[in-house]
Amino acid sequence: MKIRILKIGGQILDDENLLVETLKGFSVFPGPKLIIHGGGKLATQIGNRMGIPERYVDGRRITDAQTLELVTMVYGGLINKGLVAKIQSFGFNAIGLCGADVGIIKAHKRPIGKINFEFVGDIEPEYIQTDFIELLLEKEIIPVFSSLTFDPKGSLLNTNADTICSALGAKLAEKHEVDMYFCFDKDGVMNIDQTIYDRLNESQILELSENGIVLGGMLPKLKNAIHAIKAGVKSVTVLSPTHLMDHLEGKPAIGTKITLN
Amino acid sequence: MKIRILKIGGQILDDENLLVETLKGFSVFPGPKLIIHGGGKLATQIGNRMGIPERYVDGRRITDAQTLELVTMVYGGLINKGLVAKIQSFGFNAIGLCGADVGIIKAHKRPIGKINFEFVGDIEPEYIQTDFIELLLEKEIIPVFSSLTFDPKGSLLNTNADTICSALGAKLAEKHEVDMYFCFDKDGVMNIDQTIYDRLNESQILELSENGIVLGGMLPKLKNAIHAIKAGVKSVTVLSPTHLMDHLEGKPAIGTKITLN
Repeated sequence: MKIRILKIGGQILDDENLLVETLKGFSVFPGPKLIIHGGGKLATQIGNRMGIPERYVDGRRITDAQTLELVTMVYGGLINKGLVAKIQSFGFNAIGLCGADVGIIKAHKRPIGKINFEFVGDIEPEYIQTDFIELLLEKEIIPVFSSLTFDPKGSLLNTNADTICSALGAKLAEKHEVDMYFCFDKDGVMNIDQTIYDRLNESQILELSENGIVLGGMLPKLKNAIHAIKAGVKSVTVLSPTHLMDHLEGKPAIGTKITLN
Repeated sequence: MKIRILKIGGQILDDENLLVETLKGFSVFPGPKLIIHGGGKLATQIGNRMGIPERYVDGRRITDAQTLELVTMVYGGLINKGLVAKIQSFGFNAIGLCGADVGIIKAHKRPIGKINFEFVGDIEPEYIQTDFIELLLEKEIIPVFSSLTFDPKGSLLNTNADTICSALGAKLAEKHEVDMYFCFDKDGVMNIDQTIYDRLNESQILELSENGIVLGGMLPKLKNAIHAIKAGVKSVTVLSPTHLMDHLEGKPAIGTKITLN
């Protein structure tokens, strides 16, 4: 089948109107589709209210036991089930899942190196189970994944939503035509003159990275995109939700399409 | 099919060893099965940490907007996905659901009478969708339901777990043989001389209620049990998790079986 995967994060989850509009547009668009979401500011806000400190080592966030509980509540419950209830209200069937459900996304704790990230999960791509996802898609049910995985010993783990998106997309691409949309708070990958690239391939991304034109949070996003297209995903588009519908409909629109060549 | 439904609540969810033992025993037992859980003390503890006050009117808990967020996080996320990860670690497939997923349990806000319960949902039994549950059971996946329902306008609602258990059981009983197990922190329904009734029918329960022998939280539990058996559920057993395995295996064991006659 032809499958579309939407990743939503940050700003979209924090803006109720934008969220409803994005979800509605994507749900109405025909064909098999799935959604992957991160956390937005909500986890930080609720963590603050609960007195759970954000712990960083060398500038990188640590998922200690308390933080794992927090993200399980906020990503796996509050945001995930809220998205499902919204999609159902548009008249479409959705189901809220995390990586532990039906054992879909197995992971292991990131090995302790210079930093101990504690309950951060690195996906075991060879064990991703897509049978159940395919069954849902055949029944026109939209799977909505929160960014949680699990280890087979029974612990949930915190995994980056872009990484989950890329790993799921790569696995589905073994049998299906997959297009991925990384929706976030910018219009795409920005050039030094503030214009948005229409299209980038791996070698161009490498060059932009080496020249320091692409920085910060964008780099891991592009790394995930490259991983996905190398594994057979047809395209990954980095875009703002405002332009999502045009991209889905194949119209010319602002956004950066990452392709193999 | 022959379906077994386990309701777990309160004390069991708060006791890690008891929870693992109960879940493992139930998961290993062959045949189609589902689990429904409430919240335990965790929602209160986390509510306290977040500064969400428990609001009561005439001694009854109100689910205001903040409390709905709290139970969505704790029931729908933390507890639900934690149970799924545990069952997966025993080598069985489970899936964490709430009433909004695939539109399984529609409800409406309880009408404002003497009390406005706010985001409390009364189930619309005629709209319960069991097709998807049956599909999961056929695939040997254990559905794990948190006690959340939703209204078709897109809001999640808080609904008593015993009530969800009874409504789901009643609907499944239209086509299947259903046995239900209400596991809680007592051995069953207690007589005035502190012994446990082996068996009770509707008229006996009515008599116990009128004579003030059955009181408090037990009454709604028994009302839900009666509702289920009148709708065709074969039996409802009120029991402690310690005796669950014996009951599943049909051995004589402590616990009160509620039957039609």
